[in-house]
Amino acid sequence: MPEIRRDPVSGRWTIVASTRNERPSDFASGKISESKKNCPFCPGNEDQTPKEIYSVKSSKENNWRLRVVPNKYPALVPSLDAECLESEGLYRKMEGSGVHEVIIETPDHFRQLHEMDEDDISEVFKCFASRIREIKKDKKIKYVMIFKNYGRHAGASLAHPHSQLIAMPMVPMRVANELEGAQTYFSQNSRCVFCDIIREEMAFKKRIIEENDFFIAINPYASRFTFETWILPKKHLSHLEETPEEYLKNLSGVLKATLQKINHSLGETAYNILIHTMPAQEDSSPFYHWHIEIMPKFSHMAGFEWGTGFYINTVSPEKAAEILNSGKKYNK
Amino acid sequence: MPEIRRDPVSGRWTIVASTRNERPSDFASGKISESKKNCPFCPGNEDQTPKEIYSVKSSKENNWRLRVVPNKYPALVPSLDAECLESEGLYRKMEGSGVHEVIIETPDHFRQLHEMDEDDISEVFKCFASRIREIKKDKKIKYVMIFKNYGRHAGASLAHPHSQLIAMPMVPMRVANELEGAQTYFSQNSRCVFCDIIREEMAFKKRIIEENDFFIAINPYASRFTFETWILPKKHLSHLEETPEEYLKNLSGVLKATLQKINHSLGETAYNILIHTMPAQEDSSPFYHWHIEIMPKFSHMAGFEWGTGFYINTVSPEKAAEILNSGKKYNK
Repeated sequence: MPEIRRDPVSGRWTIVASTRNERPSDFASGKISESKKNCPFCPGNEDQTPKEIYSVKSSKENNWRLRVVPNKYPALVPSLDAECLESEGLYRKMEGSGVHEVIIETPDHFRQLHEMDEDDISEVFKCFASRIREIKKDKKIKYVMIFKNYGRHAGASLAHPHSQLIAMPMVPMRVANELEGAQTYFSQNSRCVFCDIIREEMAFKKRIIEENDFFIAINPYASRFTFETWILPKKHLSHLEETPEEYLKNLSGVLKATLQKINHSLGETAYNILIHTMPAQEDSSPFYHWHIEIMPKFSHMAGFEWGTGFYINTVSPEKAAEILNSGKKYNK
Repeated sequence: MPEIRRDPVSGRWTIVASTRNERPSDFASGKISESKKNCPFCPGNEDQTPKEIYSVKSSKENNWRLRVVPNKYPALVPSLDAECLESEGLYRKMEGSGVHEVIIETPDHFRQLHEMDEDDISEVFKCFASRIREIKKDKKIKYVMIFKNYGRHAGASLAHPHSQLIAMPMVPMRVANELEGAQTYFSQNSRCVFCDIIREEMAFKKRIIEENDFFIAINPYASRFTFETWILPKKHLSHLEETPEEYLKNLSGVLKATLQKINHSLGETAYNILIHTMPAQEDSSPFYHWHIEIMPKFSHMAGFEWGTGFYINTVSPEKAAEILNSGKKYNK
């Protein structure tokens, strides 16, 4: 059973999960593996994953277009007990209870998110919303984090296109911090800070990467990473899982075009995508606004960033947007 | 002039410093360069760095043992103005004013910290303390962060052994967060949380890596990274720069032996070292305790960690300490 341990100084949480050490890697050699044959996420190898939880079938044949399976090397595992903190000397820990699933986005080992059909990308997001709605029926689940690691430098261990979902028994620190900031802004301005950001960016124009009637992709004002990009619904929506289907359909165009621009300008670059949404058990909120954060990773986080929580970005978001929108290659 | 920009949601700060993009790298090829000839930190190439600020000369010849120079590609630069926030639409920014120095730890391009003589390591820490005492005479400086990036995966761009110092006009978020946690603990327990951790670890014994009468090195209870190690003075001391010289002399043995164990068990592994000390303009504090954090980097921070601030560690600190102390090699 994994453990969740609390740092007694900062209150930061660490999951100690030794089974995660056993997971296989396509990247041992430093290159993306082409070992389609041994890939547990490829069609024909379905018996290599735990039992399927959710799937979308192809209309023509009976093949799958998307599958969700439990992570075989989970960071958190389901437990029937209510969560409570235990003492260990001075320290506090709790059982690592939760849910860890893998969303296999496509049967095609080589088709990355930015190469998929818009319809298939929509299915991925419909799946995210559906899984959150299902998982949060368990009232012990306080937060559902959905994320994607693309490329080894972004922490991926398998090359086949997939996302992950980790549902946990507390609201994580970074989300709590955003919620607190957004709530403070709302109490001072009676407006959602994200809605104000969208308004500001649509007026300023120089940090927009893509937009349609439903979503906008921007390089945020205080980007931590070079070419960091956020995608937000234009309408105020606090929960991904309560977003109307028409919206999710229209997300795929903006996401695909944004990832294509990143891929074109930066070449083969690792990235993380993460979704920040309202805590699972909370009602719709006037101050929080769900969004996607895309973080290309071509520099390494260094001691200064670790020590301070400050980031150093060597390309301003205005310049980054100019490069992404120009069709030019970025010379790292 | 670099800019410090504030994220309007989380309050997080980013330094936008485009000149940092121009800095040279020994690692372009992916391997540590042996280009001693072109190294700006090697003896004979002193004219390639900005003017020396501090140095320790060798007693026998007139050669230098250690040099401090301004960073040629600084993240922050000195400014005479008092810091103040400016508006930019919805957003807030300020001038990137501060100090960015490089501490060249040894004239020897190939002698890493764990290979240096204990006397030379002491000089490095005496130099840190001296630079902080000098820099904080400027009352605009609120925090001095000292850190070391070793190896490309830890963000180093030059191979020659060196540390860096960045002095900044605000207390950074991670330090503020630690201070707040330590203050809360103190108000509840009337004791320093770090002193309590030392007491707990000396009783428990299973997470100690090294110790002498002055310092203790432990793998902390909620280690974020596999083999993360902290070194703390046993006596309660809030400021590195107020630590008696006898203490700093006795730090080098513990630090050197700890780094040797890490190097031996993990092989050639990148790491960050950072020093957390009390904010520069604050008096001695009963609740805060300066310390060193060593973070080996052999996995990449992934989307889950970015999104949550949770960490997943696949080796418990007890197991990690056992490996480091056994003299065994760790099989990544």
